[in-house]
Amino acid sequence: MNTLYVVGLGPGKEEFLTGQARKALEQSQVLCGYTVYVDLVAPLFPEKETYTSPMKKELDRCRWAMETAQSGKDVALVCSGDAGVYGMAGLLLQLSPQYPGVEIEVVAGVTAALSGGAVLGAPLGHDFCVISLSDLLTPWEMIEKRLRCAAWGDFCLCLYNPCSHKRADYLAKACDILLAEGKSPDTVCGWVRNIGRDGQSAQVLSLKELRDAKLDMFTTVFIGSSTTQEISGRMVTPRGYEKKCEW
Amino acid sequence: MNTLYVVGLGPGKEEFLTGQARKALEQSQVLCGYTVYVDLVAPLFPEKETYTSPMKKELDRCRWAMETAQSGKDVALVCSGDAGVYGMAGLLLQLSPQYPGVEIEVVAGVTAALSGGAVLGAPLGHDFCVISLSDLLTPWEMIEKRLRCAAWGDFCLCLYNPCSHKRADYLAKACDILLAEGKSPDTVCGWVRNIGRDGQSAQVLSLKELRDAKLDMFTTVFIGSSTTQEISGRMVTPRGYEKKCEW
Repeated sequence: MNTLYVVGLGPGKEEFLTGQARKALEQSQVLCGYTVYVDLVAPLFPEKETYTSPMKKELDRCRWAMETAQSGKDVALVCSGDAGVYGMAGLLLQLSPQYPGVEIEVVAGVTAALSGGAVLGAPLGHDFCVISLSDLLTPWEMIEKRLRCAAWGDFCLCLYNPCSHKRADYLAKACDILLAEGKSPDTVCGWVRNIGRDGQSAQVLSLKELRDAKLDMFTTVFIGSSTTQEISGRMVTPRGYEKKCEW
Repeated sequence: MNTLYVVGLGPGKEEFLTGQARKALEQSQVLCGYTVYVDLVAPLFPEKETYTSPMKKELDRCRWAMETAQSGKDVALVCSGDAGVYGMAGLLLQLSPQYPGVEIEVVAGVTAALSGGAVLGAPLGHDFCVISLSDLLTPWEMIEKRLRCAAWGDFCLCLYNPCSHKRADYLAKACDILLAEGKSPDTVCGWVRNIGRDGQSAQVLSLKELRDAKLDMFTTVFIGSSTTQEISGRMVTPRGYEKKCEW
């Protein structure tokens, strides 16, 4: 039986790969994925066959990977961040009944909520929600509902795909919803751009400042709970030890 | 200036370390943390000084790490999973103003939501919440409120610390809340025990079965959204490509 590894690469540079991910790439004869992600790891394995496809061609890419595995090769389909969180693992598993004889192995990676969180400090140190603001595959009404529920629950939020050229005002709309549902305009927030890549940048700012920030699709956004603090320029959501311990 | 690395180890075995985490451990003169986690990595660095402390001694451990860094050593405080998600990064950053001259570097790791998700398939393939059921540091009323909000938003959920000896019925209580707030008893759920360690086990089951499952504190629980499916024994939350693509 041939194996199709679906591999989370982490945020970018080689240092964020796990040993398990590196081993899966080594054991594969073919590396495939979205062009940008394959380009991140192909230089580590210059002898390997690669297959890249552009954004919005996810189904084609997954079918190609399945067919190639079925034809007798071990294949690694690479994803940035984690393989499962907004990654290709789900789509491959949905397709899997159509491709008997292919064993799918999911290899987790450090998703942007974690890698970006580490850059900012510890924004997700207590219960949190991860929401994508992209409405390509999800009705905006659903996204809006989830934002409201996240605000009601006083969760920390991590927002993926906060904006794009076509959705330039989505982050502002999301902030307006959170503000309308009771989040304080002074809530501690942060963003990280190009996590783990050249030109990484980050900022800690308030929710009212975030509302008017001009960000892009390479940015991950963090919105605190009511307990989140800015400490020496870092964004920190306490677990609550200070309530129980001699401080 | 001395560096205190707070390092997410991933779920357990060496293969889940990122290159960045390994490098931080290599560069440290002292490895410290909860006994179980130090034991996972100390064998990789037999020459290094170690300091371990038991559970519920988090503040002492962090103070020891800060003092040791301030005294002139580079220190790695290790956490299982990620350094930030219910990890020690937040507590260290809260203490940091008391320890000038110590540079805290947060090193992200693969948290159980991701590593356990990979074992089950792709349970967190769309928007999700992470909630700890431990009420040691969080009032149960807050946990209950967040469970309700997660149900209203039709999020996937990942539950940390689903139960312990003293909290044997917490998972059942949580499931009852989700059921009362409208989640179907047939919602696809899953659990993974001892993720990435010897004796790893996992099961996909319904929410009504999960309610009566006897789990322990080494288990991470996943509860699907209304779109989560069981496909060939795996737990999969579709991103939604099937709605937009020629299937």
